[in-house]
Amino acid sequence: MAHDEEMRIKSIGGGSLLIAWQLKDKKVLIVGGGEVASQRVESILTADAFITVLSPESGLHPRTKRFINLRSDRVTHHARPFSGQEELDGAEMVLTALDDNDLSRSIVEMCRARRIPVNAADIPDLCDFYFGAQIRDGPLQIVISTNGNGPRMASLIRTKLQKGLSGREGEAITKIGQLRNKLKERAPGVGGQLGKERMKWMTAMCNEWAIEDFILLDEGSMDKVLDEGWEKNKRVPSLNEVGVRRPQTSWITTFILPALPTATVFVAGALAATLLLTHHPRP
Amino acid sequence: MAHDEEMRIKSIGGGSLLIAWQLKDKKVLIVGGGEVASQRVESILTADAFITVLSPESGLHPRTKRFINLRSDRVTHHARPFSGQEELDGAEMVLTALDDNDLSRSIVEMCRARRIPVNAADIPDLCDFYFGAQIRDGPLQIVISTNGNGPRMASLIRTKLQKGLSGREGEAITKIGQLRNKLKERAPGVGGQLGKERMKWMTAMCNEWAIEDFILLDEGSMDKVLDEGWEKNKRVPSLNEVGVRRPQTSWITTFILPALPTATVFVAGALAATLLLTHHPRP
Repeated sequence: MAHDEEMRIKSIGGGSLLIAWQLKDKKVLIVGGGEVASQRVESILTADAFITVLSPESGLHPRTKRFINLRSDRVTHHARPFSGQEELDGAEMVLTALDDNDLSRSIVEMCRARRIPVNAADIPDLCDFYFGAQIRDGPLQIVISTNGNGPRMASLIRTKLQKGLSGREGEAITKIGQLRNKLKERAPGVGGQLGKERMKWMTAMCNEWAIEDFILLDEGSMDKVLDEGWEKNKRVPSLNEVGVRRPQTSWITTFILPALPTATVFVAGALAATLLLTHHPRP
Repeated sequence: MAHDEEMRIKSIGGGSLLIAWQLKDKKVLIVGGGEVASQRVESILTADAFITVLSPESGLHPRTKRFINLRSDRVTHHARPFSGQEELDGAEMVLTALDDNDLSRSIVEMCRARRIPVNAADIPDLCDFYFGAQIRDGPLQIVISTNGNGPRMASLIRTKLQKGLSGREGEAITKIGQLRNKLKERAPGVGGQLGKERMKWMTAMCNEWAIEDFILLDEGSMDKVLDEGWEKNKRVPSLNEVGVRRPQTSWITTFILPALPTATVFVAGALAATLLLTHHPRP
């Protein structure tokens, strides 16, 4: 093993475990209703949980109110302060967003005793987990954590990262998920040799096709990808073989437009020389 | 409220809750020792946990062996298969990476009964959480999840995102964290009005300084940032005021080099015109 790799392994540490927690149809309790609580409601709604917001009416931020009104399918509001540990019954996750640190602290202790994952806003020492800055595009989710070193920085880095994305990655991933499901219908079963072959073929597809190419697929062409690819010795078919064409970009966009600035400068140079050479005063 | 915002709120859902789980000095059990298990060991080491790997010697991937040998400070190996639920005693998280799906399934059930968060590799339905593709740069951690729609895609998107980063963000975030700690020493306390003012000032600093500027700070200049900034009506000081200079870039790099290609094309145009106008055949 290379010395570098040995050094790298020895120095691993100092971070968090970044994970995608599954909350579909689970119960989450949010204690507090202010601005931070409104952000928590949005994060938890993203994960399809059922949310109880516990906060006196006067403590509700307009954004929290909006979620309560518009998402009554998922968000229930109890207009009262936290009253005791029976509030935690049935909760699979608890988030506090309170100005009262002592109350936060005691709620965290109750959660620990019941082994309920808990986050207390602004008190990192008490948290089982932190939130980060998020990017969401359909099935694609990205989270940026600075491990408590600066939330503003996380959001600046989010802006930086967003510039590198086309905004169509989510759509492409949706199509890849559909293709994968179709493949699992043809070659069903969990794990084992077949599972490995499925994964290997999907990886080859993702490596050889451009991300944007997957967006072009529909039900019919997905079947063709499986017929011409998976079924034929697990090869990767070309776009042509599955009857899909990339949208034609005209020769104007491909060749003329990119050359325009250069051409303009060239012409400017030529004009300048022409003026100099032809408009000199005659004797 | 705008109609768009109402529509947006109504459509939130379909994702996971991406979080930075805290595992410092906690006990994590990994059942299995193959390639996937080796990736799990690395992820968990990142979060400074204590790891028990449960796997017969024959099931160990070379990478898993490397972690066991080089990180005996954190990784303990028991060379035997999973023997029963007493293996879970003390574990705060359990990960299975096994070919035997029935065993995975029964371990997951035992974890559920004890409310231990659990991930079973390749069986998404059984997981409390998923892993994703990761970027790590000191305190900066980024995770990319496709919500189970394609791990290869997540790693392609990681490559895309990495191109947008300078590789110095981690260093800058470390400095920001240090500055924040110094600020907390001067203005201690959790939450409340002071907490809000601290956060507001740190946000202003991050907004007005470039990310790279923070890298230039040392102990002394950090104190000056607090003296000239926080102490003076919570303003944002300039680099100059805290005695720090950006590395000088010469006027050649700043002005001449970027203009070279344009200048070359201009001269080419001028030359072409000159040749045409002066070398025409004389009658």
